[in-house]
Amino acid sequence: MSNIRHALSARRADDFAQWYQEVISAADLAEESGVRGCMVIKPWGYGIWERIQRLLDDRIKATGHDNCYFPIFIPLSNFEREASHVEGFAKEMAVVTHHRLISDGKGGLIPDPEAKLEEPLVVRPTSETIIGDAMARWVQSWRDLPLLTNQWANVVRWEMRTRMFLRTSEFLWQEGHTAHEDAASAKEHTLRMLEVYRACAEDDLALPVIAGEKPENERFPGAAETWSIEAMMQDGKALQAGTSHYLGTNFAKASGIQYQDREGSQQFCHTTSWGVSTRLIGGVIMVHGDDDGLRVPPAIAPHQVIILPMLRDKEGDEELLAYCEKLRAAIAATSSLGEKTRVLLDKKPGKAAAKRWDWVRKGAPVILEIGGRDMEGGTVSLLRRDRLWAENGKPDFSTPTVEDAASSLPAMLEDIQKSLFDEAATRRDDNITRGIADMDALADFYSSDKRYPGWVEVQWSKPTGAALDAVVEKLKALKLTVRNVPVGGAVADGTCIFTGEPAVERIYVARAY
Amino acid sequence: MSNIRHALSARRADDFAQWYQEVISAADLAEESGVRGCMVIKPWGYGIWERIQRLLDDRIKATGHDNCYFPIFIPLSNFEREASHVEGFAKEMAVVTHHRLISDGKGGLIPDPEAKLEEPLVVRPTSETIIGDAMARWVQSWRDLPLLTNQWANVVRWEMRTRMFLRTSEFLWQEGHTAHEDAASAKEHTLRMLEVYRACAEDDLALPVIAGEKPENERFPGAAETWSIEAMMQDGKALQAGTSHYLGTNFAKASGIQYQDREGSQQFCHTTSWGVSTRLIGGVIMVHGDDDGLRVPPAIAPHQVIILPMLRDKEGDEELLAYCEKLRAAIAATSSLGEKTRVLLDKKPGKAAAKRWDWVRKGAPVILEIGGRDMEGGTVSLLRRDRLWAENGKPDFSTPTVEDAASSLPAMLEDIQKSLFDEAATRRDDNITRGIADMDALADFYSSDKRYPGWVEVQWSKPTGAALDAVVEKLKALKLTVRNVPVGGAVADGTCIFTGEPAVERIYVARAY
Repeated sequence: MSNIRHALSARRADDFAQWYQEVISAADLAEESGVRGCMVIKPWGYGIWERIQRLLDDRIKATGHDNCYFPIFIPLSNFEREASHVEGFAKEMAVVTHHRLISDGKGGLIPDPEAKLEEPLVVRPTSETIIGDAMARWVQSWRDLPLLTNQWANVVRWEMRTRMFLRTSEFLWQEGHTAHEDAASAKEHTLRMLEVYRACAEDDLALPVIAGEKPENERFPGAAETWSIEAMMQDGKALQAGTSHYLGTNFAKASGIQYQDREGSQQFCHTTSWGVSTRLIGGVIMVHGDDDGLRVPPAIAPHQVIILPMLRDKEGDEELLAYCEKLRAAIAATSSLGEKTRVLLDKKPGKAAAKRWDWVRKGAPVILEIGGRDMEGGTVSLLRRDRLWAENGKPDFSTPTVEDAASSLPAMLEDIQKSLFDEAATRRDDNITRGIADMDALADFYSSDKRYPGWVEVQWSKPTGAALDAVVEKLKALKLTVRNVPVGGAVADGTCIFTGEPAVERIYVARAY
Repeated sequence: MSNIRHALSARRADDFAQWYQEVISAADLAEESGVRGCMVIKPWGYGIWERIQRLLDDRIKATGHDNCYFPIFIPLSNFEREASHVEGFAKEMAVVTHHRLISDGKGGLIPDPEAKLEEPLVVRPTSETIIGDAMARWVQSWRDLPLLTNQWANVVRWEMRTRMFLRTSEFLWQEGHTAHEDAASAKEHTLRMLEVYRACAEDDLALPVIAGEKPENERFPGAAETWSIEAMMQDGKALQAGTSHYLGTNFAKASGIQYQDREGSQQFCHTTSWGVSTRLIGGVIMVHGDDDGLRVPPAIAPHQVIILPMLRDKEGDEELLAYCEKLRAAIAATSSLGEKTRVLLDKKPGKAAAKRWDWVRKGAPVILEIGGRDMEGGTVSLLRRDRLWAENGKPDFSTPTVEDAASSLPAMLEDIQKSLFDEAATRRDDNITRGIADMDALADFYSSDKRYPGWVEVQWSKPTGAALDAVVEKLKALKLTVRNVPVGGAVADGTCIFTGEPAVERIYVARAY
């Protein structure tokens, strides 16, 4: 199939990073804003985010959470309360020091020295401390627990090296924050939200993920336990796609979140926090994209079906448009994946072939082209984005009747959703290597000329403290990190690849974003 | 009806400002955050905002706009480009000057002097200049126009005197930004979005508004025309509830938004911007609230119907809950106001009467109480929030059969929506005074002992420049402002109340938030 003329110039197999940038641009997802580390999310990219929001928000509400909104500014002193939290974040925050600008007398503007804040404000990098303040006001008694809140917001972490969707100074996310009576219920909730993330990633985004616990050194600053979902990108690297933290009583003590228990005595709450961000879109690109652009899973596609009338700027166009509009209405009346099918009749000016390739690059799941001859024959030219090319190297159009096209779309969209997941899951499983039993073999494996080596499952003795630091250093030399200890992973039966001691669990190590 | 024991302690008639604060607290809408000028929006308040977002977003998308997301930070130099824009905003912006904190050596944190930004960043007070940068990249030819964008975002304007929902340093809003070929199409779009706001305010929020053009002195900084929707609060003051601006080529010139026209020459775009914010919730409170708390119009109520089982912490509770759950499912299967009816079965612990009053204060449109006897008799005790009190000073419960209750709810919710609008429209119309023909009469009118004098419609000669400034000063002495010149207002036929010249149009003057 070497005669295929792909829609992108970069190839995944040649230069994955270059390819990633080209997809973002060719699918019109986002662009650099000119403001350091901040991106502009364009309509197609933002539309995907809106779909993710809608589906995840439903899941978050179904598990009993209410959405709230908390201030973007956090007083500096809030960060001084939780030592390890500030340690983790203090290096990368935007600090507001003035509340007014004045003229510099030369036609420019400067911060007004008269308007310096007594206490600087930090633009939230995450909201544990400010939401902790609110929880301390809201929680009085065990009857107020569990307190289950969530917010959708922008956050800022000053990043030196940025990459669109994966690491930007400002990003969009949701952050859930909950308070519970005891460790058991808080830990149970931490895992419940991890499962919500797994379900959203796999069922909505078609991203196969491995849910598990992060090692001690990878914990969120201030957390007692950090759990993650990890996805494998097409270059074999791991992407941490969401995290759920059990915070113990650390933040409750810092913010004074206390309740009167059933026996009448004061107790500190056990809290959790958990978040996913626009980074998920980076994962969708790197898992589902191909050499023709993005492929958007139907569940999160802003438009699932595109109708492209082959207009010719002359007589007959109106009749063709009316015909397409009738088809649009018929498709819009069907349901796919539990919702009304989202169909767009694209009437914008431009050549049909050019518009087709725009939608291929954007990754709309199904494209229906309709010209005058199709109309006469009562057929459409249908292109499935996940099976773009025929054996002959040409776009693999089928030509069902217009009735068959409309009625078969719901099942087709479900099939595309499933196919994208299956393809990614098979690739992920094919790229996990097991049985490497010592560090030399691990080093050999990752220094071989295999371009995208994937993940390795190894057994370890779960070292902590200085012993863990030594392991982290060893891995760092190979540019590797421990991803997580999978939930429900196979029992360990060997020796630790790092310490030689009896292994207690199996972990994944990988290169990562 | 003086024997009514209202659910609030403050009365609208006695102290409107005090009453407003009490509603916000009693309806659990929001609270002060402890961060200067920023509020925490609590679940019921945020739920109302989510409903407004959903309904307005549908309207914005139906008029052809795509949602995007632009950076929260705007480089200082962007503000230097458009002189009147910076003049209007420079006094009230949060300025980020550092990107890192370090220890002060005494256990505290300070902005790291080594991490001072070369160019300070402003937290967006509005996004014309940063979106203008993007538009300059996106627009090349007349084929790219109109460019219709919108974003939902938080913005910050440093406010010295804040009031929850009405004026806070951080608030949530949507801001639409569009670019057009010429003045005519941009002006047409400005009015189209004004009409979208009118329809949303009146049909979704049940807020009667007057749409019209603001006088020159009240224009948005940098705008050529500013239009608004104005609502009358129960204290007779005006609330500017939304604005739509025709920006001429001012921002296009500042940001370089140019296109090649049909004849091949370069032209500056004509742009518009328009926004509504969480301030709308302040309007809902001040228009629909009463001495028992908030009354939420059903279209924007997070829950439209509350089922309150009268649990007694003993045997029989389970049977009662099962009965209520069956009713909940039956109601959830109905549609009201074009959507699935939103019904909540409130199972939280607590006495039914206390929970009833909580929901009354929150303003849920319909409350259904069900006790053991109701269940046996196959009835429910139904309370309509908009008609709370019976003649005898007791809550006006009706007791339909459970089947009748479920089947009558959709029509009842529509009736409540309409009743709230009609009540507000009648009050608004009753409180507009016409026929005041000179300044002395106007001064007399507003200095009379009428507690809530409302608005006055006067005729004026539409002065500009210094003559307008003189009018503004005269009105300011009476604490009055010109609200707007209504779209489709009656023709002027008298003399200007301010200048004595022949009048050219009718305007509203009022005290305002």
